[in-house]
Amino acid sequence: MSYGYIGSMKTKPGHRADVVNILLSGVEGLRQVGCDLYVVSVSDTDDVTIWVSEVWQSKEMHAASLALPETKAAISQAMPMLTGEFTSQEVTVVGGLGV
Amino acid sequence: MSYGYIGSMKTKPGHRADVVNILLSGVEGLRQVGCDLYVVSVSDTDDVTIWVSEVWQSKEMHAASLALPETKAAISQAMPMLTGEFTSQEVTVVGGLGV
Repeated sequence: MSYGYIGSMKTKPGHRADVVNILLSGVEGLRQVGCDLYVVSVSDTDDVTIWVSEVWQSKEMHAASLALPETKAAISQAMPMLTGEFTSQEVTVVGGLGV
Repeated sequence: MSYGYIGSMKTKPGHRADVVNILLSGVEGLRQVGCDLYVVSVSDTDDVTIWVSEVWQSKEMHAASLALPETKAAISQAMPMLTGEFTSQEVTVVGGLGV
């Protein structure tokens, strides 16, 4: 069964689109490092929250991706635009449609 | 852009697998009513929480699916095994891998 990660982050006012663009910029490279699904969404109930739903072939592959130079660069670029309020949930994907 | 829904529910102890099976039982029928993605996951940090990440062609299609007889039957079947603790977040999907 696959490893899943459901997380949210809050951006400083006016910066959500910038952070979304950073998150989406590296998305094509994720497949080759073990990511099956990476859904970037924005909250419909405020204008600062971003949600990310991810499915990876393993927890280890997800962890390894965070150590890649391009991931670190993206995090460094986004961090000044974030408030520091995050939520995260690690899950095991058990099935569904499209996974 | 697609409509997304990220929700969680808690089951009474010992009933998580039963509720997962109910959620997965109708999953193939979802595609024809406008669902693109329906990921059922279980929390890695407790043994009672289920997470569902959904992507629909529209908010209206998601709402309509809840009124289908098979959906109502599944909800009725699952409800006695749930504690009533839910979280939900409506989002707009802006991109990613696999969507």
